[in-house]
Amino acid sequence: MPQIILKKLVIIGVGLIGGSFACALRKADAVGHISGIGRGRENMQRALERGIIDEIADSSQSALSDADFVLLAMPVGQTETIMKQIAPHLQHDTIVCDAGSTKRDTVAAARNYLGKNLRNFVPGHPIAGAEHSGVLAAQADLYTDKHVILTPIEETSAEAIEKSVVLWQACGAKVSQMGIDEHDEILAATSHLPHILAFALMNHLRNSTDRPEDLLRFAGSGFRDFTRIASSSPEMWRDICLANRDALMKQMAAYQDELNHLQNILKNGDKAGLEQAFFKARSMREDWLKRNE
Amino acid sequence: MPQIILKKLVIIGVGLIGGSFACALRKADAVGHISGIGRGRENMQRALERGIIDEIADSSQSALSDADFVLLAMPVGQTETIMKQIAPHLQHDTIVCDAGSTKRDTVAAARNYLGKNLRNFVPGHPIAGAEHSGVLAAQADLYTDKHVILTPIEETSAEAIEKSVVLWQACGAKVSQMGIDEHDEILAATSHLPHILAFALMNHLRNSTDRPEDLLRFAGSGFRDFTRIASSSPEMWRDICLANRDALMKQMAAYQDELNHLQNILKNGDKAGLEQAFFKARSMREDWLKRNE
Repeated sequence: MPQIILKKLVIIGVGLIGGSFACALRKADAVGHISGIGRGRENMQRALERGIIDEIADSSQSALSDADFVLLAMPVGQTETIMKQIAPHLQHDTIVCDAGSTKRDTVAAARNYLGKNLRNFVPGHPIAGAEHSGVLAAQADLYTDKHVILTPIEETSAEAIEKSVVLWQACGAKVSQMGIDEHDEILAATSHLPHILAFALMNHLRNSTDRPEDLLRFAGSGFRDFTRIASSSPEMWRDICLANRDALMKQMAAYQDELNHLQNILKNGDKAGLEQAFFKARSMREDWLKRNE
Repeated sequence: MPQIILKKLVIIGVGLIGGSFACALRKADAVGHISGIGRGRENMQRALERGIIDEIADSSQSALSDADFVLLAMPVGQTETIMKQIAPHLQHDTIVCDAGSTKRDTVAAARNYLGKNLRNFVPGHPIAGAEHSGVLAAQADLYTDKHVILTPIEETSAEAIEKSVVLWQACGAKVSQMGIDEHDEILAATSHLPHILAFALMNHLRNSTDRPEDLLRFAGSGFRDFTRIASSSPEMWRDICLANRDALMKQMAAYQDELNHLQNILKNGDKAGLEQAFFKARSMREDWLKRNE
């Protein structure tokens, strides 16, 4: 067991991500007191009852007066508002880490609002989650063996990075570091684009018939898995897509080109071309699975 | 336990679908002897060793001389060849059922080749499967609580339908009946289109960078589920897409329209429009899950 690393942790946004961070650090015996800040009285009350947080903070001011570490885990659309709100109350050595799925916008907000605390800011993104949101979905092992990407900026101090790495590792995560732009481009391709595609499929089916329930009655397990991410939070994904709009639009355009290519092969009845395209796609996925075994 | 329904079953194509049909009927004690016909000596040998079939047939002629029931479970691209091959050896009361993912093409082949045996032909499609293929993936419970759609044609006799229903039910399946065109349109929307989309995503990612492995390193569980069907058999999916080409191309075009619509919302930074689109998509999926609980 590691010794207590944090005397006081403040979680802003106690949902799946924030709640699981709290649970994991508690389980690792890495934190003394956990204070929660969030919208939705009911959700916060549940977090308290389940022992995920020790208190619902009365105010940002009181919560932050003696905090070692703050995790920002609210939907990314609220980043500016929250940073503006907490900035005046941050102590000179309080580390702030975020968990947003996009990093360029978070860093821009931090530069605007965090002022001298910028050196304590560690932008981060745990690649973990589920289609279910809210604190009831929180679990201590959500981050076990999952990737967490930190994208420190030039102002970030070595100490702040080091402490963030140690904490995420205490949650069981594999921690990597990369640049902001690289992060946002990789995630646009492997996460944001697939979400858009899954949402689009559901809406396409809805619009294609008067009785979509008849269409879906015979949908099988392939359909269920393919569309799982279409059950994700609309608010959260609205914010992510807007925050990473340029990279995502580039991905969508290139994906449409690929679809057009397949459409042409199919139109031409090109048997060998079709099999080769599917074979390449499968190989790439199988290779990926093997590398990640 | 049902009594023995079939004295002799012939499986043509002993892979996941054919092998699982054999296993399920064996487990239900619904069949006496099972004879297998297939390409690939190694695969057939495995089927024999695992007790999935009782014999590897020497020829279609010997296998069919006393068969009650034949399941066609080879890739749909081979349907014409196989029907041509078996037609001369079918007894007047041997029922033939297929398990292909598309029905218009199978029925056309049957009309061309089965002649007087057309009244014993029951086109069928079990909505079950996995990204793994081959007899090693076969399992007795593959069809438990899964849908099997039968699309009998006007020539099909009531007796042939009845026996097919009983057999699929003995495998644990929920059996429905519908028309050929309805089947092919529904499947184009809920199965064939998602497969194309998943294959296209893998190929898009492969083409978007020199080092796709770096791109995929941080892909998470959402990506894994979304792309699961991209690990499906290229040969099988080539045949399915070509067999159902018209319906699939219509689906692809309409899906592209939906993607363009989302692209425009995103381009305009329409926050409310984006959230509403995602919300509608999620609702449709949640409603579907609830209906299928």
